[in-house]
Amino acid sequence: MSHLYVTYRLEATPGEAAALAEAILLEQTVETPRRVAERDAFVRDHLMGRIDAISPAEDGTRVTLALPMLTASADASQFINVLFGNTTLQPGVTLEDFDVPPSARALFRGPRFGVKGLRERLGVPARPLTATALKPVGLGVDALAALCRTFAEGGIDLIKDDHYLADHTFCPFEARVRACQDVVDEVAARTGHQAVYAPNLSGPPDQVFRQADLAQEAGAGAVMAAPMLLGFPTFHTLTHTRLDVPVVAHPTFAGGPRIHPETILGKLFRLYGADAVIFPNYGGRFHFSREQCARLASALRDAWGSYRSTFPVPAGGMKVERAGEMISFFGPDTVLLIGGSLLEAGDAMLERTRALVASVEHAASEF
Amino acid sequence: MSHLYVTYRLEATPGEAAALAEAILLEQTVETPRRVAERDAFVRDHLMGRIDAISPAEDGTRVTLALPMLTASADASQFINVLFGNTTLQPGVTLEDFDVPPSARALFRGPRFGVKGLRERLGVPARPLTATALKPVGLGVDALAALCRTFAEGGIDLIKDDHYLADHTFCPFEARVRACQDVVDEVAARTGHQAVYAPNLSGPPDQVFRQADLAQEAGAGAVMAAPMLLGFPTFHTLTHTRLDVPVVAHPTFAGGPRIHPETILGKLFRLYGADAVIFPNYGGRFHFSREQCARLASALRDAWGSYRSTFPVPAGGMKVERAGEMISFFGPDTVLLIGGSLLEAGDAMLERTRALVASVEHAASEF
Repeated sequence: MSHLYVTYRLEATPGEAAALAEAILLEQTVETPRRVAERDAFVRDHLMGRIDAISPAEDGTRVTLALPMLTASADASQFINVLFGNTTLQPGVTLEDFDVPPSARALFRGPRFGVKGLRERLGVPARPLTATALKPVGLGVDALAALCRTFAEGGIDLIKDDHYLADHTFCPFEARVRACQDVVDEVAARTGHQAVYAPNLSGPPDQVFRQADLAQEAGAGAVMAAPMLLGFPTFHTLTHTRLDVPVVAHPTFAGGPRIHPETILGKLFRLYGADAVIFPNYGGRFHFSREQCARLASALRDAWGSYRSTFPVPAGGMKVERAGEMISFFGPDTVLLIGGSLLEAGDAMLERTRALVASVEHAASEF
Repeated sequence: MSHLYVTYRLEATPGEAAALAEAILLEQTVETPRRVAERDAFVRDHLMGRIDAISPAEDGTRVTLALPMLTASADASQFINVLFGNTTLQPGVTLEDFDVPPSARALFRGPRFGVKGLRERLGVPARPLTATALKPVGLGVDALAALCRTFAEGGIDLIKDDHYLADHTFCPFEARVRACQDVVDEVAARTGHQAVYAPNLSGPPDQVFRQADLAQEAGAGAVMAAPMLLGFPTFHTLTHTRLDVPVVAHPTFAGGPRIHPETILGKLFRLYGADAVIFPNYGGRFHFSREQCARLASALRDAWGSYRSTFPVPAGGMKVERAGEMISFFGPDTVLLIGGSLLEAGDAMLERTRALVASVEHAASEF
């Protein structure tokens, strides 16, 4: 029998924790009193899981449960349900970590490209990648394509839609994708640098799948999507059945203290197929700590079963001047996403972009 | 121009709050520095929103922003993104409340049945409804159908799948739905009481829509689904285009302190089309307070634009003996969901069920 191992931190003393651990175990499996569930031999023997470990933690107690993969792997939505569904409704319980057995591979393929595959597609074997966003929402197709052109000429590797870009009357999805892809192709033909443009997929499932088809048909080298906006199951279908290009995952709506960032933005996004994950970097306008960022990068890249590594994409108030520091901290297998800092340059945007690209090449050469 | 009004509570003093409010405003609209966004007249005039109010709150400061419906209503996923997407990644910000203008109706129809429609379908014009769950997961089709029969014979109005029930080899979706629907129809023919059976829709979008079709084709009188597992956009497609029967929404994965329950389980679930919403009742095994439950019931039922009322479904460790207290607290437009307390009765389950149903009729007659 195979299990999903899940670690929660309880705001409780070790003395209180045993009873709470039993309560969470039942909640995440049978959701009936134990004696009711145990009436049935199959339920009792296969679906009740067990408490694996209880240990003191800073500010509470750490509990690891072994939950049945039989229910957790029923489908891409039940996995989240068994992992941390009802227990999100309990105060004082944080999902810290989880791990899956090899049998999870039947449901979860993880990243199709990951670090290695994205490097091959971009033709960048060693140094960190650079990325930026087309914004703000409200600009029309021509204006966004012009920005895209400047960034491509500046040498940026990955140019993505802002996550607020959807199918708007003032900026229709298809027109935007074709215009931006044309731009990166034209710059490639002219300069030899092939930037990858990644449109944002947004909306209900049928629209997202249609956009994925359109984007790929137009030649986009990647796409972006937000797992918590689309829903994990839709993101799973996207990555597992609808895409031949890499996907960059956006963390919008994935925040909150109940799930450690390295677990939701790290492991879950990676498991569900993200080839790269954008997250708020320390020292930017968000408040992740250096330690959280390091753990997140590890969760994305460290060897994990047979799952490929996912690119961390630190972002959020990043400055061109910090590129060297970022590379020292995160290492070369990183995508540096810089938005406002480039846009602020106005007419000097091309120059600022080239400066960023140059500084990344320079810093990388020091490895 | 129409706006989405959103109220956040900031863990900040009023002195700090003005700057934070501006930061959140930009984050939830243009996500660039203000001067970058304002370069474009259309963006400046239509997409930047404004700060509507700042006032002291218990433990912090309350901020209301007016955000543009132009972006918020682009699609069913962008609504969540604009409402509380990136800002979930900030510590110390809680989404308290929101309101939509009449133009939101173009995207959001709200509940198709709601309190009034569900009462008509069940033929229960005034008293509270009773509900229970088929569980635990692991039982085969025959065992769940037998439970279903007992509950139907006992007079329960709404018999739903447990939320862990999916399409399992040990309990396939289609076989379960047909068996349980046959059972409620057979009991109806025999006793005159037509219970409604609601299967749980689970999985990726194509599977969920297929299950919805199957369930309706089999004659199920309602379905259940978890918006946070499926993703809000999938739930929107389900309620707005794929169902001719009511949907009961399950709160799994919707917990956490960053969004007030009355806002996510209340308003958002109602807006996206839930006809009934299950939530953890006070005094059960979860820890919502009486006040939170009252606010949640209000958010679900109070007059709101042109949206129908949604049935609150207090649940979670409910006891048969508490039925009278529940009806006094929540009033008659409530569905009392009782699970373990009935299952625990074992061989006396039919009797306990009848006692519940009788106590609800009795308590209701006191209105």
